[in-house]
Amino acid sequence: MKQALQSIVRRAGEIILKAESIRVEQKEGHANFVTNVDKEVQRFLMDELQRLLPGSHVIGEEQENAPLTDAPTWVIDPLDGTTNFIHNARFSAISVALLKDRRPVVGVVYQPYTQELFYAEKDNGALLNDQPIHVSHTSMDQALIGFGTSPYDAELAEKSLQAALTFLRRAADIRRGGSAALDLAYVAAGRQEVYFEWKLRPWDYAAGSLLVEEAGGCFAMPGLAAVDYAQSCAVLAANAVCMKTAEEWLRPFWA
Amino acid sequence: MKQALQSIVRRAGEIILKAESIRVEQKEGHANFVTNVDKEVQRFLMDELQRLLPGSHVIGEEQENAPLTDAPTWVIDPLDGTTNFIHNARFSAISVALLKDRRPVVGVVYQPYTQELFYAEKDNGALLNDQPIHVSHTSMDQALIGFGTSPYDAELAEKSLQAALTFLRRAADIRRGGSAALDLAYVAAGRQEVYFEWKLRPWDYAAGSLLVEEAGGCFAMPGLAAVDYAQSCAVLAANAVCMKTAEEWLRPFWA
Repeated sequence: MKQALQSIVRRAGEIILKAESIRVEQKEGHANFVTNVDKEVQRFLMDELQRLLPGSHVIGEEQENAPLTDAPTWVIDPLDGTTNFIHNARFSAISVALLKDRRPVVGVVYQPYTQELFYAEKDNGALLNDQPIHVSHTSMDQALIGFGTSPYDAELAEKSLQAALTFLRRAADIRRGGSAALDLAYVAAGRQEVYFEWKLRPWDYAAGSLLVEEAGGCFAMPGLAAVDYAQSCAVLAANAVCMKTAEEWLRPFWA
Repeated sequence: MKQALQSIVRRAGEIILKAESIRVEQKEGHANFVTNVDKEVQRFLMDELQRLLPGSHVIGEEQENAPLTDAPTWVIDPLDGTTNFIHNARFSAISVALLKDRRPVVGVVYQPYTQELFYAEKDNGALLNDQPIHVSHTSMDQALIGFGTSPYDAELAEKSLQAALTFLRRAADIRRGGSAALDLAYVAAGRQEVYFEWKLRPWDYAAGSLLVEEAGGCFAMPGLAAVDYAQSCAVLAANAVCMKTAEEWLRPFWA
């Protein structure tokens, strides 16, 4: 399945690269956009993934979704980083996870602009364009910290920047790229040490969480009593060296 | 000169892409790094640019510099975004400006990982890989705001995030990429609407400032009585729609 799945996601990336007329619609909330390209990529992925795995379910950003079950379920974000896409900022990704028994068993994050495909299978490691990747061993004082800003929610936006300042004072620097899926993939690849965001939906983090864990890193949903891939929740990912400190620094904010 | 200069900068980019062993040194201040690759690229650029324009001066990040004069002077950052480079985060650039009478007349910013070369000549427009670029016409409520964090200075770091929050509340979102040269080039190309940072050196902003202005945007050094390319200073760049609002929102912080 690996080769066929990678081929589907790369073809979906072609749709993003070749998009000519982009029509933007405002969704509910501040700075929450969708385009015709998000929708076109979602349709393509739904068709191809259900053909690849007959009988599988699909949960995706741009549709009404039935509740998650134990059945094989694709959890997809056809275009993570839509605001970047609208600006042609060339930092967006396709995120595809396959869940069985409500846990990810395969995760793919694909950056079409750089043709970087991050791929993980449960208990089988993480790859970038078929080469193994690992989280870094970098300690907090030298660490790069990715974070999300929750621009659609004034209270979470302010908390996000307060938390970012806590890290900025003692780590190397902070980064805000605008794609949660790529932020998680970058932790997996050792390009940054930590990533946190207050409120993500399953299609934002499902594939990336498996990438981080299979690359030797740590992934948590700090606001939940137990991991639950059906929930919108806060997310924290880090390499093994930085995780404990990151949890401590963020704890006052989750409370 | 245009073709020869572009060729020199692209060859310098090859040095960055092919670097195998990276040795990191801490410079003065928190989170201020230099590597052997920064130094190697600087040596290459100095040799090639002085051969291209005999008798020209060079002011660069990785050397002791004589004061700026009216003579033709290259102002270069061999590797802007060194922290990203150390992390292999693939968001760094080479910045080269040619100053005459203390003002930029040519500016080049080159992103080797994407092979995107941003080029501007005074009164002759701005190009990305030889295609004309323009700042966006996007208004503040839909704008992407790039900013610098001054991680080496606790007071500036806090001010930077306070200012970022002001924008986050009313624009689309904020971005922190980690390369001032690319942030300015991205404003020029319409990939973001605003960029501000508290303290940049001339090699960080000289090429990018010309890119922004030649792409139809606005560039200011808000803390100085008059534009002075010999100074370390605060920098603000924006498209023509957002500039006035950005100046108003930042004024309380410069004061």
